[in-house]
Amino acid sequence: MQGDRNKILVDSIKRLLRRGAISHLLNIVDKTHAADLSAVFPSLSLSDQHKLFEMIKDTEQKGVLFSELEEDIFLNFVEGMELDEIVEILESMPTDDVADLIGRLPDEMSDTILEKMKKEGSEEVEGLLRYDDDTAGGIMIPDFIALREDTTTKRAIESLQKEHQDVEMPFYLYVVDEYGKLTGVSSLRQLVVVPPETMLKDFMTTDVFSVQTDMDQEEVAKIVARYDILAVPVVDETNRLVGIVTVDDVIDIFRQEATEDMLKMAGVGEEFIETKSVFKSIRTRIPWLFASCIGGIIASFIIGYFQASLSKMAYLAAFIPIIMGMGGNIGIQSSTITVRGLATGRLHIRDIWSVLYKQLAVGCILGIVYGLLIGAVAQIQYNMVMLAISVAIAVSCSMTMAALSGTLVPMVLARINIDPAVASGPFVTTAIDIISVSFYFIIATALLGI
Amino acid sequence: MQGDRNKILVDSIKRLLRRGAISHLLNIVDKTHAADLSAVFPSLSLSDQHKLFEMIKDTEQKGVLFSELEEDIFLNFVEGMELDEIVEILESMPTDDVADLIGRLPDEMSDTILEKMKKEGSEEVEGLLRYDDDTAGGIMIPDFIALREDTTTKRAIESLQKEHQDVEMPFYLYVVDEYGKLTGVSSLRQLVVVPPETMLKDFMTTDVFSVQTDMDQEEVAKIVARYDILAVPVVDETNRLVGIVTVDDVIDIFRQEATEDMLKMAGVGEEFIETKSVFKSIRTRIPWLFASCIGGIIASFIIGYFQASLSKMAYLAAFIPIIMGMGGNIGIQSSTITVRGLATGRLHIRDIWSVLYKQLAVGCILGIVYGLLIGAVAQIQYNMVMLAISVAIAVSCSMTMAALSGTLVPMVLARINIDPAVASGPFVTTAIDIISVSFYFIIATALLGI
Repeated sequence: MQGDRNKILVDSIKRLLRRGAISHLLNIVDKTHAADLSAVFPSLSLSDQHKLFEMIKDTEQKGVLFSELEEDIFLNFVEGMELDEIVEILESMPTDDVADLIGRLPDEMSDTILEKMKKEGSEEVEGLLRYDDDTAGGIMIPDFIALREDTTTKRAIESLQKEHQDVEMPFYLYVVDEYGKLTGVSSLRQLVVVPPETMLKDFMTTDVFSVQTDMDQEEVAKIVARYDILAVPVVDETNRLVGIVTVDDVIDIFRQEATEDMLKMAGVGEEFIETKSVFKSIRTRIPWLFASCIGGIIASFIIGYFQASLSKMAYLAAFIPIIMGMGGNIGIQSSTITVRGLATGRLHIRDIWSVLYKQLAVGCILGIVYGLLIGAVAQIQYNMVMLAISVAIAVSCSMTMAALSGTLVPMVLARINIDPAVASGPFVTTAIDIISVSFYFIIATALLGI
Repeated sequence: MQGDRNKILVDSIKRLLRRGAISHLLNIVDKTHAADLSAVFPSLSLSDQHKLFEMIKDTEQKGVLFSELEEDIFLNFVEGMELDEIVEILESMPTDDVADLIGRLPDEMSDTILEKMKKEGSEEVEGLLRYDDDTAGGIMIPDFIALREDTTTKRAIESLQKEHQDVEMPFYLYVVDEYGKLTGVSSLRQLVVVPPETMLKDFMTTDVFSVQTDMDQEEVAKIVARYDILAVPVVDETNRLVGIVTVDDVIDIFRQEATEDMLKMAGVGEEFIETKSVFKSIRTRIPWLFASCIGGIIASFIIGYFQASLSKMAYLAAFIPIIMGMGGNIGIQSSTITVRGLATGRLHIRDIWSVLYKQLAVGCILGIVYGLLIGAVAQIQYNMVMLAISVAIAVSCSMTMAALSGTLVPMVLARINIDPAVASGPFVTTAIDIISVSFYFIIATALLGI
């Protein structure tokens, strides 16, 4: 449905641009959310993008569109723009989004823009740029409402009406002491239900969850999700309130982290590259393919080593694919379960022994089941008991070891603080390929006496 | 950090339970969020779980714990409980969570509980059970604030103070006409900043996003994420407001959908099974392994067919693993990019031709690069030009076709409304194995004249 609506929008806009039907276009642009307009951009030429962009009346909407555009398209687009206009748009945007966009720009451009931006606003942004991108400090916004403990609700409501009009999402009112240290929180709702002269400290919640600026963004996201809160306050090392991370950013973090994990496991980098150029795509994909290539070359030497046996019994080769395939597949199953389990908190490193034990049991049982099955097929195909037994044992061993290493590798990586997704996928598969093939030939030559 | 804290909590609770240090325990339970207590449960025996549970004073906290427990543990736990106590806890919980829990219980138990629950509350829950689990209707909560268009802000604030105390997350005030049809929305914040006698219709936002009860939950989640809203109203086919979906549920949906996609691609079902029994784990994993087994048996017959050639030139077998491996890996890269791209909206089915073209280009270039590399290795290893050429061509073809089918299969599945994640992973890999091996032997026997 979403897709259909987008398609209709793209088609009408393209048609109207071709016809130069400006008043129609103005009408559509006016009624369409900037997030939807951003989806149209990739289908338009650069000059059409600029035409459409100029039709947006509201500077804030232009800002929303900026932050929704994909990196490539955004960079191409702003290249042709006046610096002053860019600055004006950035000034209308939430600070975290500004920091994000400025981080993408070439250095000279971002420096000039930061200089041009209003003194106060720019300091905020520079503040954000100081923190690591993937930490609470890097994703927080400095737009929050903080009031002193002895503020009355009446005064608090007045300050909402007058001073905090620019705060993006005011769900919570944070309460701080005289040093700006976080002491409590109140919801907007509580504010309207208590008598006007009550002081914040008399009804605020004092056990407020907060995170430090250097906490990893994934941890922050987990806390927000775990406690079903709309924003989490970020404090510095002295517990001074410096920003908040809001739930809409948390959604983005989870989606981004899931995408990263999937891409890493398949060996295609961390960022979604498909919308980028063929060349970039190749550059991202080549390294893991090279790892797999080295694995394959090693396997070819191993098989070459058994060439004499193979000449005598060529049918040995027939079972190479199935032994590799069964090992590879059960290995991917185990590593996927482990990587995702660790990411979502369903599995913990501290449970490593019980997890390994279970995976070993699963791998062993499945290995024996499929070993017997494939051994039986080999027996029917070639009617040689020793060949069938070799195949059966090789399948069982390969599957058991694959299930085990598919679990062990990500757990060990996580234990030593390496992202388990990075190396688990291709690394495990390649290792299993080599081990399976060696196993098979060693067992077969021993049993068949060749 | 989260993990460490959990471990410390588990350890202290276990130690205190062993010692029977009730007052210490009561103190810890009192200070710990129920979501954190739920993480302790899997490490405790059933009787210790009950002991700990009885120490929770607040019925609502018991409810939070219920909804955080994993399915297996929850079912085991409630089996030993009085129905009346279960009912009391359920009544304190948000309706969508109740519907979710009741859906997990055995039929007789859920029927009795529904009967016992208060007439009004239960009707709400039964209402929710009527909708499909994965639709807007299934995940919405019926706790929202809806007021008529001519309500003044003063009256609206009063109603917040008196009538809507039980609403879980009141960020938005929905405005309806005399038939209950949705006409607008106002934020709590707007309410406090306009004069008290203003009517809602005079300042409400009229272009309010809403979704229908039968919309798929993933679509709903995408809308909430896209427009950065905290809740989306759910309407029936006549545009009557029947519920809202809140942002905390949206986070859960995204995490769950990402997990599902990863598990499906690896052929391990849809739900996270690792915390379940070895037997369940095996049952979930066996089907896709069987598919891969059939693929392997087919490959063994194909190689068996070329047995005569293999007896003459045993070294042909040495390159089976690398040809399969390179094809398999590039296939997984392409299918992962495509499946995740479709899920996150980075790729669209309508762009199928441009995506296929790009993947074809990437596959072709990478195929040629690695074909030449591996061909060169073959030449060095065996010094036979025709063998080297066969290997090079087989690698190139296998990689090109794998990149293409890794993209085409999920796109076609999505086009005919089958979840692209279900079949893409194991299906693509198995198909590529068979095709690669056939290709290789056909080319090699032709070129080498055997």
